[in-house]
Amino acid sequence: MTGDVSPSAGPSLGPGPAVLAVDVGGTDTKSALVDEAGVVREILRRPTPHDGARTGERVVDEAVEVAAELRARHPDVVPAAVGMVVPGVVDDERGVGVWSENLGWRDMPFADVATARLGVPVSLGHDVAAAGWAEYQLGAAAGYRDALVVTLGTGIAAAVLLDGRPYRGGGLAGEIGHARVADGPDCVCGGRGCLEAVASAAAIARRYTAATGRPAAGSREVLAAADAGDRDAQTVRDEAFDALALGLSHAVALLAPQVIVLGGGLSHAGEALLAPLGRRLDDLLTFHRRPVLLRARLGGDAGVLGAALRARSAVGGAPGGAP
Amino acid sequence: MTGDVSPSAGPSLGPGPAVLAVDVGGTDTKSALVDEAGVVREILRRPTPHDGARTGERVVDEAVEVAAELRARHPDVVPAAVGMVVPGVVDDERGVGVWSENLGWRDMPFADVATARLGVPVSLGHDVAAAGWAEYQLGAAAGYRDALVVTLGTGIAAAVLLDGRPYRGGGLAGEIGHARVADGPDCVCGGRGCLEAVASAAAIARRYTAATGRPAAGSREVLAAADAGDRDAQTVRDEAFDALALGLSHAVALLAPQVIVLGGGLSHAGEALLAPLGRRLDDLLTFHRRPVLLRARLGGDAGVLGAALRARSAVGGAPGGAP
Repeated sequence: MTGDVSPSAGPSLGPGPAVLAVDVGGTDTKSALVDEAGVVREILRRPTPHDGARTGERVVDEAVEVAAELRARHPDVVPAAVGMVVPGVVDDERGVGVWSENLGWRDMPFADVATARLGVPVSLGHDVAAAGWAEYQLGAAAGYRDALVVTLGTGIAAAVLLDGRPYRGGGLAGEIGHARVADGPDCVCGGRGCLEAVASAAAIARRYTAATGRPAAGSREVLAAADAGDRDAQTVRDEAFDALALGLSHAVALLAPQVIVLGGGLSHAGEALLAPLGRRLDDLLTFHRRPVLLRARLGGDAGVLGAALRARSAVGGAPGGAP
Repeated sequence: MTGDVSPSAGPSLGPGPAVLAVDVGGTDTKSALVDEAGVVREILRRPTPHDGARTGERVVDEAVEVAAELRARHPDVVPAAVGMVVPGVVDDERGVGVWSENLGWRDMPFADVATARLGVPVSLGHDVAAAGWAEYQLGAAAGYRDALVVTLGTGIAAAVLLDGRPYRGGGLAGEIGHARVADGPDCVCGGRGCLEAVASAAAIARRYTAATGRPAAGSREVLAAADAGDRDAQTVRDEAFDALALGLSHAVALLAPQVIVLGGGLSHAGEALLAPLGRRLDDLLTFHRRPVLLRARLGGDAGVLGAALRARSAVGGAPGGAP
């Protein structure tokens, strides 16, 4: 039942209350203990329990267990609050996991249930929004006022950070993956030609396989093949980058972000993504505020760090507004 | 030198400081005197002076003259502040008209110059943002938290109102008219296939004339011809509505506004715009928050009312954040 144990990771959060942070993912759940100096003392990674309609309760059981384990190993760190972030549709204000397709819950009152079990205030947030907030406070977008933090993974979604605050739109903001950028293909959401269906890391691999009959483990493999001269891979890559630039250009026209931070699997391509995407944006933009394009800095820890910031914000230990 | 004089118009702003409001347009400038009850006592409309590089100074001269005239006619109303809104690129914080293509100024320090001349604090804002703020506070978007107020006139631009506040993006937010929605035509901004080049009121008239050789005074005429069975008019109209729905669907995916308010010349079509646009949005959206589509309520007075709200906000007489 023990998972990976990693030592202190990532940037310091600075002085504030000690907190426990839990980032519930589709596959794994990461839990981090942060001390009063803002140092992440330990991050634990465990498989997320999957138990049908009871998955929400099991996630809380697991958090209680991990909290006890971390506190036993670090008796000098007494968390004043817990931040928990989950995927799907989240009602931050009521602390409710409204819906998760992957994890199967509906209207799960995480904040109330976990607060009762853990004996300290638990604040619930959305995973993509929390990861974006962490990049905005501690990562690549730090120092910018208006930012988008875009995750290019299985899906495509953005955290929207404006005038120093997160904007959540009732939990439905940032769904740039589901805006039409092409005539096809069909998208899982029921739409057609959605950005996510053309340009997510998963879509790039899927489309390459569909075009060639050859399996691709992921977008990295397709980009490498394109670099090596594979015409099919180049077509899939170029269509993805075109679509991504078009989708981002709409966001630039509307919000004029100073920076767009790219994270998720596809962002591991680094300059092989940023350079061609930047050229395409230059072609699409005229008088607009041209955003700086940067790669996310906090990697897979962004979500759990965002959860820690959220916990601190909930007990008044950090500037307000953490998502 | 006297222009139109209209009696009290539009909604009451509610109790607060008396203010003078000036909305400088490309053709006309509207000035309104608002009393402490929030009643608009009078709106004066005068031609905007055009004097090359000196246009900014002449606009202030004119405001001084109008202020004296209004105060002479309403001696019981003593403005505590002035709100002035202008087109182009505006730096609200510094009170500077950064650039106006139509009116020719560059870096005109309106707020400082007019404050010195008028003897009360003058606050400068952007005309589209101010009109949007007025619709959000007093008009069609009142009661909604997250809103876009879109002007469909010579150009297309949006005011962005989120979580109760205006978002300005350094003066460059809301430029949805300059995002690509089609392969053409060329746009005045230097781009190609911009929403404004296909779907603005001006574009609809221009494209109809280009397609048929027949002059069209405006979009209203083209929509009427389409309703009467003119195939060319139908094509121009349908392409415009398709483009508008596509552009708005990107904004919906990103920001999930609860309401989109449509103003400007094209909005006078009323249901002949709202109904087909709503159907197209329904086709493009899936799980998204579907915004209510409403016609702007304040009409041509939105800008001057927004300027009045801005003036009140500047002297602490209204909730903060007026653009």
